[in-house]
Amino acid sequence: MFDNKEKTNIEALGEFGLINHLTKNIELVQKSTLKGVGDDAAVLDPAGKKVLVSTDMLLEGIHFDLAYTPLKHLGYKAVQVNLSDIYAMNGIATQVTVGIGMSSKFPIEAIEEIYEGIYIACEKYGVDLVGGDTSSSKQGLVLSVTSIGYANPEDIVYRDGAQEGDLICVSGDLGGAYVGLQLLEREKLVYLENPNIQPDLEGKDYIVERQLKPEARKDIVELLKDIDVKPTAMIDVSDGLASEIMHICKQSHKGCSLYEEKIPIDPMTYETAREFGLDPTVCALSGGEDYELLFTVKQADYEKIKFKMDISIIGHITEPASGCNLVSKSGNVHPLKAQGWNAFPADDQTIK
Amino acid sequence: MFDNKEKTNIEALGEFGLINHLTKNIELVQKSTLKGVGDDAAVLDPAGKKVLVSTDMLLEGIHFDLAYTPLKHLGYKAVQVNLSDIYAMNGIATQVTVGIGMSSKFPIEAIEEIYEGIYIACEKYGVDLVGGDTSSSKQGLVLSVTSIGYANPEDIVYRDGAQEGDLICVSGDLGGAYVGLQLLEREKLVYLENPNIQPDLEGKDYIVERQLKPEARKDIVELLKDIDVKPTAMIDVSDGLASEIMHICKQSHKGCSLYEEKIPIDPMTYETAREFGLDPTVCALSGGEDYELLFTVKQADYEKIKFKMDISIIGHITEPASGCNLVSKSGNVHPLKAQGWNAFPADDQTIK
Repeated sequence: MFDNKEKTNIEALGEFGLINHLTKNIELVQKSTLKGVGDDAAVLDPAGKKVLVSTDMLLEGIHFDLAYTPLKHLGYKAVQVNLSDIYAMNGIATQVTVGIGMSSKFPIEAIEEIYEGIYIACEKYGVDLVGGDTSSSKQGLVLSVTSIGYANPEDIVYRDGAQEGDLICVSGDLGGAYVGLQLLEREKLVYLENPNIQPDLEGKDYIVERQLKPEARKDIVELLKDIDVKPTAMIDVSDGLASEIMHICKQSHKGCSLYEEKIPIDPMTYETAREFGLDPTVCALSGGEDYELLFTVKQADYEKIKFKMDISIIGHITEPASGCNLVSKSGNVHPLKAQGWNAFPADDQTIK
Repeated sequence: MFDNKEKTNIEALGEFGLINHLTKNIELVQKSTLKGVGDDAAVLDPAGKKVLVSTDMLLEGIHFDLAYTPLKHLGYKAVQVNLSDIYAMNGIATQVTVGIGMSSKFPIEAIEEIYEGIYIACEKYGVDLVGGDTSSSKQGLVLSVTSIGYANPEDIVYRDGAQEGDLICVSGDLGGAYVGLQLLEREKLVYLENPNIQPDLEGKDYIVERQLKPEARKDIVELLKDIDVKPTAMIDVSDGLASEIMHICKQSHKGCSLYEEKIPIDPMTYETAREFGLDPTVCALSGGEDYELLFTVKQADYEKIKFKMDISIIGHITEPASGCNLVSKSGNVHPLKAQGWNAFPADDQTIK
């Protein structure tokens, strides 16, 4: 992804020099950030609100492949993946801390690229980078992000509040990130076999971006507030629709019916899945990494929700005895299977 | 450290099964924990206090060597290292999140041991484990801990408040963790050369524990509160006394004089350093990983502090122009050098 020629080695700066170098231009935008980088801990003022905290790691070879992941995108994605968890609580993300472990053989320019992606994500989402840890790694690139957000107690949405009859909604479209990954993996193989052939991603920007540069749905949290709809349960789609709705149903002690024909799939996702011999619905159900919001609302909120362009109503919550089901386009009922990403795969076929 | 015979592979449980398995017995003790593990984010109630957040990573081959680090100790230490940062702000730690990346070839029993150490640390320090991330790693063991604590705004102590004439104090004793590491490294080499020779750590429990199982100084924060002393500046000793006092002086725009004869060094640390041909004072100044608290207090607080068994007064803050100096036992003045641990060493001689 980058060459080492005429680059500055990280070891030349030392840990404190590196941290200073990377954080010297931070501009804090959140009033709740009393102290950011530069002491033993950051100091935050929640001003009476409840505090939301979530943490995620991205590990080279498991969650990303540097063969086709630009470092700037990686920094951006590491932040998005975490912000998404705060939005999934119906909160607003305000701060992140970032831990990065990377080889001391990496040039400074490489870690700068990662930070550039982190800063772009922070700026776009109004989030302050308030701390972190930078270390040498003997084992490839490691990113660990913790995100912090706030919410009024009455606004927080858990996974366990879905009621029978509630409508199941999802933002955006699904399956794109997974199909984008298939495309990147294919082009990597082509390249490895013949380095003279350039990757053929022409016209596939949307699904490649869904994989490399996902966007957390802060806008949906804001929209729901604007139209005065508080979901009864919410989760973000990191492991695939099937796995996520089953989390909501399990924690709410309910069942569900999803309608295949209602699941939002972008035409490019659909077409490219077909090219790969994949069922687009399965990509949406099990692909993961879309970072859309999946939520349930009371039927009484139907009128408020129904014409919102970026929200699809894809099913409803049922009594627990009927289980979690998919009603296919032909009207058959199939029990859902959580085939979401397994973080401990038996082989190397991870999809995340 | 463990064999794979008749052990359960992590992949057999899957990510969610594993998380359930590891977190099912969590008992939350902090009133401020409204929701712990099990949703997109933890929900915390700071009840009007300010929130302190700090994060640290421990990477195999850089921060620990599994050849002599029991997994339970590793989990314990990962938590302590983080809590120490909260205490260094004069706050009380209340919650942690833990990210663990480990090979899918590890048996469940291995990750259980790490979690056991984490839980023991949490219980002892009254801290709730409220979230985290568990993932396969292709690159050795990775631990990332974020700690959260609270403090009244008027109690928070930063690094930048030291004033000329303030007394420099440190808790406990220094250099032990570094000398303990030398001992473990030596016994590892002996073992590698002749696996029939058992490690000779007899009578060295204290310094081995200083390295493998450090204790964050919550008790010092409580003591200072009891005797009504608020430090003017504070930092925890993770990178060695010299590096840490220079952080305080730099951020406070001051100088300092440290007195070699006042630096607290345990007799076992002293004796073992000598066995290795090391200068005990250099071990205290540059060794790091002691996780003691280094702080400055007003001279007016001298009477309150002077007879406290576990606090040593080791110097005073000076005007900035005189720089940071060590007054040796023979009365010579040497400028301090920050030889603290470099997270990006040019070679493999890391001391942390």
